[in-house]
Amino acid sequence: MPPPQQTVTYRLAVQNLPGMLTRVTEVIDAHEAVIVGSDRLDAQRHVIIRAISVEVRDDVQAAALGADLQGLDGVELLAIDDDVIDAHLGGKIEIANRRAVDNAHDLSLVYTPGVAKICRAIAADPVEAYRLTIKSNAVAVVTDGSAVLGLGDIGPLAALPVMEGKAMLFKSFGDVDAYPILVDDQDPDTFVDTVARIASGFGGINLEDIAAPRCFEIEGKLRQRLDIPVFHDDQHGTAVVALAALLNAAIVVDKPLADLRVVIQGIGSAGVAIANLLAAAGITDLVGVDRDGIIQPTRSKGLDPIRRRLAKQTNPRGLVGGQREALGGADVFIGVSGPESLPVAHLAVMARDPIVFAMANPTPEIHPDVAADHVAVMATGRSDFPNQINNVLCFPGLFRGLLDAAATKVTDEMKVAAAEAIAAIVGDDLAADHVIPSPFDRTVAARVASAVADTARRQGHVRPGSRGSLEEEAAAAAHASARRRIAD
Amino acid sequence: MPPPQQTVTYRLAVQNLPGMLTRVTEVIDAHEAVIVGSDRLDAQRHVIIRAISVEVRDDVQAAALGADLQGLDGVELLAIDDDVIDAHLGGKIEIANRRAVDNAHDLSLVYTPGVAKICRAIAADPVEAYRLTIKSNAVAVVTDGSAVLGLGDIGPLAALPVMEGKAMLFKSFGDVDAYPILVDDQDPDTFVDTVARIASGFGGINLEDIAAPRCFEIEGKLRQRLDIPVFHDDQHGTAVVALAALLNAAIVVDKPLADLRVVIQGIGSAGVAIANLLAAAGITDLVGVDRDGIIQPTRSKGLDPIRRRLAKQTNPRGLVGGQREALGGADVFIGVSGPESLPVAHLAVMARDPIVFAMANPTPEIHPDVAADHVAVMATGRSDFPNQINNVLCFPGLFRGLLDAAATKVTDEMKVAAAEAIAAIVGDDLAADHVIPSPFDRTVAARVASAVADTARRQGHVRPGSRGSLEEEAAAAAHASARRRIAD
Repeated sequence: MPPPQQTVTYRLAVQNLPGMLTRVTEVIDAHEAVIVGSDRLDAQRHVIIRAISVEVRDDVQAAALGADLQGLDGVELLAIDDDVIDAHLGGKIEIANRRAVDNAHDLSLVYTPGVAKICRAIAADPVEAYRLTIKSNAVAVVTDGSAVLGLGDIGPLAALPVMEGKAMLFKSFGDVDAYPILVDDQDPDTFVDTVARIASGFGGINLEDIAAPRCFEIEGKLRQRLDIPVFHDDQHGTAVVALAALLNAAIVVDKPLADLRVVIQGIGSAGVAIANLLAAAGITDLVGVDRDGIIQPTRSKGLDPIRRRLAKQTNPRGLVGGQREALGGADVFIGVSGPESLPVAHLAVMARDPIVFAMANPTPEIHPDVAADHVAVMATGRSDFPNQINNVLCFPGLFRGLLDAAATKVTDEMKVAAAEAIAAIVGDDLAADHVIPSPFDRTVAARVASAVADTARRQGHVRPGSRGSLEEEAAAAAHASARRRIAD
Repeated sequence: MPPPQQTVTYRLAVQNLPGMLTRVTEVIDAHEAVIVGSDRLDAQRHVIIRAISVEVRDDVQAAALGADLQGLDGVELLAIDDDVIDAHLGGKIEIANRRAVDNAHDLSLVYTPGVAKICRAIAADPVEAYRLTIKSNAVAVVTDGSAVLGLGDIGPLAALPVMEGKAMLFKSFGDVDAYPILVDDQDPDTFVDTVARIASGFGGINLEDIAAPRCFEIEGKLRQRLDIPVFHDDQHGTAVVALAALLNAAIVVDKPLADLRVVIQGIGSAGVAIANLLAAAGITDLVGVDRDGIIQPTRSKGLDPIRRRLAKQTNPRGLVGGQREALGGADVFIGVSGPESLPVAHLAVMARDPIVFAMANPTPEIHPDVAADHVAVMATGRSDFPNQINNVLCFPGLFRGLLDAAATKVTDEMKVAAAEAIAAIVGDDLAADHVIPSPFDRTVAARVASAVADTARRQGHVRPGSRGSLEEEAAAAAHASARRRIAD
């Protein structure tokens, strides 16, 4: 059964008598719904007004539970509020001023006439924008709405709530100022032209929910055209977190990373990126599988340009056949495909101590309970099982680091460094059911940021003269130290 | 002399003896600089650390004053901080989350899995985006950087500090969430295509600092293509506030608005918009003037398409000649042209009680002190003289109203309504030196918003089914009333 999809809040007028709340919770229990919060809104002599938030599967269950609550003696159902809708009313993000504009003096500093000096400074040296404007901390979250969650091609406007949610995570976890940009055109070249023309106001571009194979072309062309990092989170965020989990899982099963035989099922945006990043991390025995079987050059069906390239780069032992043939002797199965597509019987042909990352969402390739007895390490994309592969472990810290370094691009080395930083946080707590930190571990983003920024500086992919370059860092440190001396 | 262009803060270590601060302020006075603030940062037995913020004309004066302060016995200059630069470090705006994302439950409401329900709702009915996303309150502040302040064509990146400042004013005065969008292309069609493709995430478009005549074409085409309001503030914001001031100035000189003979000098973006809006407000005797003289069909020089159209629509008395001929018998001079371009002698040929709006910035067409004895009402764009024509009186409230109504466009009627609302605020305080409210009068935006939203609804330019439409308002009111009844 998938996890609850929504939370509703029942507002109830309950008779002020002993035991009434228990009768209410009994009804909720009978529906196998979970109470997430309860507030007493008002208490009068004879009646108490309560708001009880409950996780339910869907609107049907919410209504049925509401009817049963209304049917209780001494209970009146005042309203059923949908917590998800309430959380979205008026949008989830807003603009905040970093300083006040309360009087003419404030205005003269942040607007005319003072601002002209800042404009002239940037016109004379564009790198000043990294110091004196929001470009220093701004990321565009860009989508065409062509592959939104599991909903498919619903268009950019309907994708806006996801982009806002992403922006919230950027801010909350990485203190990155991300803004949703909806592009109303799905032609790759038009999309690229549009994004390239509005990119200069941002320090980075996070592509989001763009369908494969279009996403590969778009990302590649934007990377070529722009001098700021371009990152398609559905590809590379997933790959970074999967690599992080795999680094630790390999330790758990005591196998060297480079020796792992890895099967990747699902050749969409995430699958291709995972294959590339695992190769960059030193894994050589990778086999790709899709619904037509193993990706290899002699197969007759479905070899598009992406798969043809993958066929050349992977499958070093020249396997042919389907999922079962791919899994023979494999150490790792990574699924970014469809629900319940990995039969438990196929786990038996894998090498000892199989590692299974079943990341299809919300229904994994194989249910953790079904796989439990046959695998050494199990991970999913779900929050209600151990080892959640969640992109939020990567993107806020990654972009924090890219912005801190005023990076000009994001490289495989930076992604590997991010994965290593995520994996390292688990540390002494490493265990089969704990190969990856919790998405709410607030230490992750800073560690990822630091690893990414260091790598960017070491690789020289930082803007000369910006606050992110090594020379400038040194100069700034010297300056700060001088100021402290003066102030002492 | 133009007003001070910047503020610097001198950090001084001053001997802790009586009279030392006076010696410091005497030096500042001697430079004719103005102290805007003073803080004692630290006090020890023998020395006091002070931060003194001073308005100066330029860096040269700042340095000279610093040197004189350093030269004082018992004073050591620790640092000179540039307040404008300090106010811009890291950018002036940021993203804020409207609710917390602290745990898995929060995440399930604002991101997956909950958000899917909102996406589906918008996919089924796009108008839901006006209720459930930031589109309900978002305005893009869009520029190509081609006519930035008095700096000219410095490009979009160098214009970003102005756009951020604009966004601050939108938020501070109108609670509008405005975000800067820089378009790196000055071809009008490319610009229009780019903006049109990213417009769906916004509830309105504020064009900013785009050069004439390109701005007319861009605005016209975007208005045709988009179903959200498009407003070029340099044109229409200026026109609305000028009309507001003129409505009150006409009362001061006791002349009916419709009978005024008005000369508009400067046929850029603002001049054309002022001519159009004054015509929409009922003024029929308008005469345009530029450096080649009166805009009229028989003149041989500089009649581009914009001026040709203006020549047909204005100058009903068929005047020919230059500024002096235009001003003969005129009631009003509105300058949106260049510095010191209106000789005081020409005021003498105007009708009784001349009204002069000399809006060139920072140096007006005629200095208020020079004009004083010859005019009945004088206004400028400057904050250091009475009657400042400042766009901030218009755009935050105008867009607040457009968003409140979920308006599909902005019309001349809405602009006139905005001007009337601004003018009405002056009320009983109306006087020759007070024809327009202070830019910091916080009552203005709400009054303008209400007038604009009402006009939008009356004209039917609101989105059917949105919270802004009359039907929906009524339904929402009924719903709220029902809820209150239940809660009582």
